[in-house]
Amino acid sequence: MAGVPSSSSVPTTPLLKDELDIVIPTIRNLDFLEMWRPFFQPYHLIIVQDGDPSKIINVPKGFDYELYNRNDINRILGPKASCISFKDSACRCFGYMVSKKKYIYTIDDDCFVAKDPSGNQINALEQHIKNLLTPATPFFFNTLYDPFRDGADFVRGYPFSLREGAPTALSHGLWLNIPDYDAPTQLVKPRERNTRYVDAVLTIPKGTLFPMCGMNLGFNRELIGPAMYFGLMGDGQPIGRYDDMWAGWCAKVICDHLGLGVKTGLPYIWHSKASNPFTNLKKEYNGIFWQEELIPFFQSTTLSKESTTVQKCYIELSKQVREKLSKVDPYFGKLADAMVTWIEAWDELNPSTTAIAPEANGAADKK
Amino acid sequence: MAGVPSSSSVPTTPLLKDELDIVIPTIRNLDFLEMWRPFFQPYHLIIVQDGDPSKIINVPKGFDYELYNRNDINRILGPKASCISFKDSACRCFGYMVSKKKYIYTIDDDCFVAKDPSGNQINALEQHIKNLLTPATPFFFNTLYDPFRDGADFVRGYPFSLREGAPTALSHGLWLNIPDYDAPTQLVKPRERNTRYVDAVLTIPKGTLFPMCGMNLGFNRELIGPAMYFGLMGDGQPIGRYDDMWAGWCAKVICDHLGLGVKTGLPYIWHSKASNPFTNLKKEYNGIFWQEELIPFFQSTTLSKESTTVQKCYIELSKQVREKLSKVDPYFGKLADAMVTWIEAWDELNPSTTAIAPEANGAADKK
Repeated sequence: MAGVPSSSSVPTTPLLKDELDIVIPTIRNLDFLEMWRPFFQPYHLIIVQDGDPSKIINVPKGFDYELYNRNDINRILGPKASCISFKDSACRCFGYMVSKKKYIYTIDDDCFVAKDPSGNQINALEQHIKNLLTPATPFFFNTLYDPFRDGADFVRGYPFSLREGAPTALSHGLWLNIPDYDAPTQLVKPRERNTRYVDAVLTIPKGTLFPMCGMNLGFNRELIGPAMYFGLMGDGQPIGRYDDMWAGWCAKVICDHLGLGVKTGLPYIWHSKASNPFTNLKKEYNGIFWQEELIPFFQSTTLSKESTTVQKCYIELSKQVREKLSKVDPYFGKLADAMVTWIEAWDELNPSTTAIAPEANGAADKK
Repeated sequence: MAGVPSSSSVPTTPLLKDELDIVIPTIRNLDFLEMWRPFFQPYHLIIVQDGDPSKIINVPKGFDYELYNRNDINRILGPKASCISFKDSACRCFGYMVSKKKYIYTIDDDCFVAKDPSGNQINALEQHIKNLLTPATPFFFNTLYDPFRDGADFVRGYPFSLREGAPTALSHGLWLNIPDYDAPTQLVKPRERNTRYVDAVLTIPKGTLFPMCGMNLGFNRELIGPAMYFGLMGDGQPIGRYDDMWAGWCAKVICDHLGLGVKTGLPYIWHSKASNPFTNLKKEYNGIFWQEELIPFFQSTTLSKESTTVQKCYIELSKQVREKLSKVDPYFGKLADAMVTWIEAWDELNPSTTAIAPEANGAADKK
């Protein structure tokens, strides 16, 4: 049922060439792009430089890019720059905000091209685009996974009224080699590597939360962009390594409310190097406790019918965060403020996108 | 994290040899067992003969089995035999009822041993047993799929309090070659074959329904047996081919209520021959309409706190079926009666299992 070219065909023009930005947060030279050249070079890059703004980041020749350091962020956002994290890859969400494209792909600079079981290099970006351009199936589970892939379909017993699916807002890709484990698991299993290539794309069902990793992630900025805020992490904050998790929980709740879909599975990238588990434990420490309260909060959150745009949903969510999570730690009051600032900054830089795309709007509250 | 032998090791004693029955519904000689001999021969078979009871079913030599035909069913259940379908593979659930074992594996007689991508024969039963003996994760989605498989674990952001998981009640296996499509899809895609081997086992999240196929299915009879009723199908009924779907919807709602898990994915079997799509359309016709009302019914059904055993849950569900689905068609009033008869017959044949296993009981209503 796939409506986009299969992976064996090489499109003459790269898919969505003028409609997608690649966002990369970094503190170092971007030599990793050499390996991605065949797949990324046709696209525009938005590089968000973290840390010391006086440091020069080398970008391999031939790539079309814009680069923002902390000085740029402060200049562009003024006092609202307070919502963008510093010394943490959470700063990447600034790139989502300044993009003018419909789609975003974001990747970490320690992620390389993986190979499929036949030994072919995986064009991760192309697979994300396929995931985003075909519908998701959040309202009922299909046991043969993505029914829109070649050679698959809806199985017996899948209600026909639900086969149109829902617009896909998010495509969450996975990682071979170093799995995305928390510090305690890293400490306990230092040698574990992910070698299992699971040839599947699936929709995370409506009402189910998942741990969204920001390493290898595509999304439709028009449908869900304002919910992709990576929170307050790193410098001056009591927590790190929960930036993508926070964005994932918020985005999933809003996708469920607006009738949008979230996919996970293919494509894989090759994650080269495990980060230091001791440093990670320091960053995660508070999050390990807090997530025990955050998950029930997000599992029980409902949004009102008046919240018909992502921005409205996000503001409503910020109020609930302030009200219900401030008692967990005062940090969540600050975070709720930052969520509001983020939306204000988003709307300032994106004056025309405050109304949601019609198809998603129509799907609001669809069961 | 797997606590059972890996697939490469050959256990000296077959797993659960004395705790599992294989249930096979059939109308023909069971030559298909020859291919399964290395895997099935150590186990006890329960063969439920459908159709003409005077026909002799040949079972290959060396298998340990008991066989029930319609006369046996009528003799054992008396008037309660009315709840067991005739001229439909739904009759298989009689085998679940007469078993005295803790685990059931059921397979269709047109299913053969499949091969994994390395060309090795897949021991489907062994994989089902592994799925059933390790916990499920219904309360939060793990992006690396089953965290209890070798080489996998819970990813960053997975709440630690949920990592104990839930007891696994059901293991739903898949099919290579002929996919389990409905008649309309069969008619539209007569040549489609499933060639994609997806190397994953995953838990269907709490609150999500799925289309359960009875072709290749394992379950824990102590935990969920009384909910595995395959309904009234076939001879004298206005519907067929929804037997396993019905059982799946009922069982999933009850598993969610009791805090039990349902897995899907591996193992694959080789499904040899597509059934006739015209015959299938005749059987499915009503179901195609009815399922549009059944799915919202099951999605919105809640069970009371007093329903602490599978039997109590099932009786409560039968009342809701009568109350809310009889208006769809009078058939559902008959089905509700049969659901009650089924539980009465189950309890008669299984006097000691009316109380649920303690671990599941304790998990009731766990979020």
